[in-house]
Amino acid sequence: MKKTRDVYVIGVGMTKFARHPDRNFISLGEEAMRAALADAGIGYEAIETAFCGHVMQGGTAGQKILDKIGRTGIPIANVENACASGTTAFRSAWASVAFGMNDVALALGFEKMGRGPIKMSLGEETPPENQPPMMPFIFARIFEEHSALYGTTREQMALVSVKNHDNGALNPRAQYQKPVTIEEVLNSREIVGPLTLLMCCPTGAGAAAAIVCTEDVARTVKAEPIRIVASAFQSEKHADPDHPLTGITEINQRTANLAYEMAGLKPDDIDVIELHDCFAIAEIIHYENLGLCKRGEGGKFIEEGMPKLGGKVAVSPSGGLLSKGHPLGATGVAQVFEIVTQLRGKADQRQVKGAKIGLTHCQGFGGATGVHIFAKE
Amino acid sequence: MKKTRDVYVIGVGMTKFARHPDRNFISLGEEAMRAALADAGIGYEAIETAFCGHVMQGGTAGQKILDKIGRTGIPIANVENACASGTTAFRSAWASVAFGMNDVALALGFEKMGRGPIKMSLGEETPPENQPPMMPFIFARIFEEHSALYGTTREQMALVSVKNHDNGALNPRAQYQKPVTIEEVLNSREIVGPLTLLMCCPTGAGAAAAIVCTEDVARTVKAEPIRIVASAFQSEKHADPDHPLTGITEINQRTANLAYEMAGLKPDDIDVIELHDCFAIAEIIHYENLGLCKRGEGGKFIEEGMPKLGGKVAVSPSGGLLSKGHPLGATGVAQVFEIVTQLRGKADQRQVKGAKIGLTHCQGFGGATGVHIFAKE
Repeated sequence: MKKTRDVYVIGVGMTKFARHPDRNFISLGEEAMRAALADAGIGYEAIETAFCGHVMQGGTAGQKILDKIGRTGIPIANVENACASGTTAFRSAWASVAFGMNDVALALGFEKMGRGPIKMSLGEETPPENQPPMMPFIFARIFEEHSALYGTTREQMALVSVKNHDNGALNPRAQYQKPVTIEEVLNSREIVGPLTLLMCCPTGAGAAAAIVCTEDVARTVKAEPIRIVASAFQSEKHADPDHPLTGITEINQRTANLAYEMAGLKPDDIDVIELHDCFAIAEIIHYENLGLCKRGEGGKFIEEGMPKLGGKVAVSPSGGLLSKGHPLGATGVAQVFEIVTQLRGKADQRQVKGAKIGLTHCQGFGGATGVHIFAKE
Repeated sequence: MKKTRDVYVIGVGMTKFARHPDRNFISLGEEAMRAALADAGIGYEAIETAFCGHVMQGGTAGQKILDKIGRTGIPIANVENACASGTTAFRSAWASVAFGMNDVALALGFEKMGRGPIKMSLGEETPPENQPPMMPFIFARIFEEHSALYGTTREQMALVSVKNHDNGALNPRAQYQKPVTIEEVLNSREIVGPLTLLMCCPTGAGAAAAIVCTEDVARTVKAEPIRIVASAFQSEKHADPDHPLTGITEINQRTANLAYEMAGLKPDDIDVIELHDCFAIAEIIHYENLGLCKRGEGGKFIEEGMPKLGGKVAVSPSGGLLSKGHPLGATGVAQVFEIVTQLRGKADQRQVKGAKIGLTHCQGFGGATGVHIFAKE
């Protein structure tokens, strides 16, 4: 484990996740950035470098946002790792402070998406025009594999969606703020095989920002600083495309274990988690990958209500990707917004009581997984 | 100036820049990466992290390339800063070693472009379908401003193009390997106002890779290591769009000065430069921004033959963007390939005799400028 400086989050900001038909990514990013600066109580001139995570907003998108608030000439880089683009930005900001390059860094994540499944490619240069919805296909296959091995059911997937919509209903920034029933989830439109619409995260638009800094700087600001006790960030090994469960298990478990090792903590120590539930089956598998339960017992874990608000460990009190929404580049930073808000005890109706340790988990399929652990001092 | 570890380039690789109609960015990237590993004489398993620079190759493009050679699970990030995407990747790799996060890092730059002017936007979300060629318009305006202030002429721009095509004719990896005359440059097709086709860099395809590491690692490899004595990387301040000369001067001069300060060197100490000559007028202005001549004397500098091979300082012996080509994300890393090759004395016909100190300068308009200085030990 390399020796690093302690790094703190001192400011977070986030727009509501929604369709936002009348706003562009610049307007959304500006709102999130201004909110994070206001939260930290510092001016933009204090920011020494910025990392901007997005997938499909075009060239120099981050600069276009930062220009709205006053470009000071600081180094800016746009980063991309599919659905982990935001966590890549946050990780980069953490690294720049942890390793002594900067004292204050900004992570910004944003995306304005269109409707319908994402056009993407895992190997070819350009996805075909008539491409079927690739990610739901892969996660349907992952469900089939997990179900064959461990008996995981569609009803268990539906329970994940019910929990996350219950949580989202308590979050004024969630794209969907309405509880759903098991029956509604099971009977919603079929997307691919076992996966229904309410088991898939929506597309949308939104932005989130987080400001990180050294301990010295953190002591000078008005906001309650939250310490980052682990930053683990890994890319996938080569995986068998016919058995996607193997690959998704390997990368996420490896990254989570690295984070626990870095923090000197065990899964049982975590009070609140924001988890990358792009599909309901992903959440079940990630209970296992994050060590919240034994391998194969993810379905039972949700059935027994363990990850609910008030359960053994609150998973995605924000509503997660399924209910809060998933504007790709925004997600990883929005997870930080939620955990910092929870650890500060400011999450209102969805507050996890007495939360002291939080974790964010974000996977960009084919890109990278980032796991960060945070502690209230 | 922050204290950093010494960082060395131990391996470089580069494809020919060309149209490459039958190859995709994955194939090009793989070739460059394999060449850099072979040059360093190390295996891929030695690489601890990778930064992949490109503009328009879609999501997780870097992972798609690295997957071809054996994905080991290392952290990978895709970075983008318009035409400075490659230099952003190189800077990120440098930083990860300089600040102690990694001992060996890979920078990969690549792009496969279509024909015709780049669709881009400086402020709106999506460029209009019928957008005129924006960058040539901006650089035509920059020429007009520079000409009005200092009397810079179209003939001087033509001399830049002649020099760079003369150099490119000596470079087997250049997209164009044919000398041109002043008359051919002046009489080639008008693109925008004073700028003719041969004063604008072409679109194309290609890739380049560079491996950087600590001094300890550098001592163990077979290749001649080249030390990075400065890495300066800055983004633009807010600039007046009606007076682009002001902005392009500010960002490039500021970044160059930072690099000289970091290296403890003066412009006169530099033997060979790879300069971001996206348009012929850019090269003239950057002679001034890099301190090779006084402000306003860039036109005279080329007229007097100073930046030729064998002149006061060789500028873009590779042929530069005008003749070697400019596959966006590849450029910043390809500049490193050329400087390392020059400092090793391996540049054959285009070798700058006795070159000991080299500099790369890369600007992504609206994104960032990177200036790196290299020294033969």
